[in-house]
Amino acid sequence: MVEVRALVFDVFGTVVDWREGVARDLRAFFDRHGAGQVDSHAVADAWRKRYQPAMEECRSGRRAFTRLDVLHRENLDAVLLGNGLDVTAIAADELDHLNRAWHRLDPWPDAVAGLKRLKTRYIIAPLSNGNVALLLNMARHGGLPWDAILGAEVANAYKPQPAAYLRTADILGLQPGEVGLVAAHNSDLAAARACGLRTAFVLRPLEHGPGQVSDLKPDERWDIVALDFLDLANQLGC
Amino acid sequence: MVEVRALVFDVFGTVVDWREGVARDLRAFFDRHGAGQVDSHAVADAWRKRYQPAMEECRSGRRAFTRLDVLHRENLDAVLLGNGLDVTAIAADELDHLNRAWHRLDPWPDAVAGLKRLKTRYIIAPLSNGNVALLLNMARHGGLPWDAILGAEVANAYKPQPAAYLRTADILGLQPGEVGLVAAHNSDLAAARACGLRTAFVLRPLEHGPGQVSDLKPDERWDIVALDFLDLANQLGC
Repeated sequence: MVEVRALVFDVFGTVVDWREGVARDLRAFFDRHGAGQVDSHAVADAWRKRYQPAMEECRSGRRAFTRLDVLHRENLDAVLLGNGLDVTAIAADELDHLNRAWHRLDPWPDAVAGLKRLKTRYIIAPLSNGNVALLLNMARHGGLPWDAILGAEVANAYKPQPAAYLRTADILGLQPGEVGLVAAHNSDLAAARACGLRTAFVLRPLEHGPGQVSDLKPDERWDIVALDFLDLANQLGC
Repeated sequence: MVEVRALVFDVFGTVVDWREGVARDLRAFFDRHGAGQVDSHAVADAWRKRYQPAMEECRSGRRAFTRLDVLHRENLDAVLLGNGLDVTAIAADELDHLNRAWHRLDPWPDAVAGLKRLKTRYIIAPLSNGNVALLLNMARHGGLPWDAILGAEVANAYKPQPAAYLRTADILGLQPGEVGLVAAHNSDLAAARACGLRTAFVLRPLEHGPGQVSDLKPDERWDIVALDFLDLANQLGC
């Protein structure tokens, strides 16, 4: 990692705990609408399950690039309908607010302290499929000290499309080998490595809750494997 | 300004003192190359004078959108040639470094303290014609506490094109009237107002040196007129 000047971060799962944050806001919403019996974690998982197929419409070219807030909102309506809620009877403002649960996700306990240390030596920015407003509001909510907000909306491409990684490096004025991706997902790191980026795997064994079966270990020999952001900072001498 | 959620800032001249910073780096460069007689402030002004025509090539559509680092570098070569320096005899790395003088500009003395206060109540981001890497490196150099790096490269349009203002508001997830432009230039504010943004004029009477004749007063009734960023923060109750 000696040539690395910038660390870019996957966000959902790597920096923030999306599942607990989304479930928390869904719980309050369901209770308000007399749907106390609905399992908010199961709905959070169902909402998240529609994430990749929605982006795939854009990646495939069947749909123009559309920011994640819009895809999330479409998926929310579908998931609520699937759980018996009549979304047409609910004010759009309230659904928009619920949709912004993704803007209010809490960082993992080590994330902010680790990012502050990493920032002393590296440019730090999200390289997320979240859109700019989502990531910016999340940063203000959680105190994430990003140098810039990058990612799919700025690159106009969703990970794991190569353009998402390569345009991000180009926008930073760096060669791909001067950029390291930090992610809790092997597939994201594999796509970044194929573009020439450096790779740091951070273990997040609770992203999908207590029954998680994916990404519990590195699938390849990534440049760094870390237990959390503090361990990553230690390994990078920050 | 009661509906404003985000303040976006012109940067060159409004947040940072481009003329002194550029002249400082030119001075060192000329001295190194045996050109001690060259007036570095005059060259800084000449370099800056090529800024609008270069962007106009992109605004007009005669040239695809090209980031400012590239335009600055082309203009630097032309200005150095015009001052008798043989740029072909100088290492590209050194010229690239000199070109990044724009990444190393110092903030006006009130800027960082003012931005920190404004950030407590508003989203703050540059809306500059500078590219992301330039603005990011400048922020790290000067301690500018931006929430995000926005502007021409993200909007894919140079101010005063309406798209530069409107896409920035859209990316922030806000209506134009929820965004305020802070600038030391009446023309920038006029273009923003035409797009529906709110406007704050900040006086920077030394941007062009002691002989400045432009932008010494507000040309229209802007929503706010401030002496500096601390006065702006005072007026906004931050």
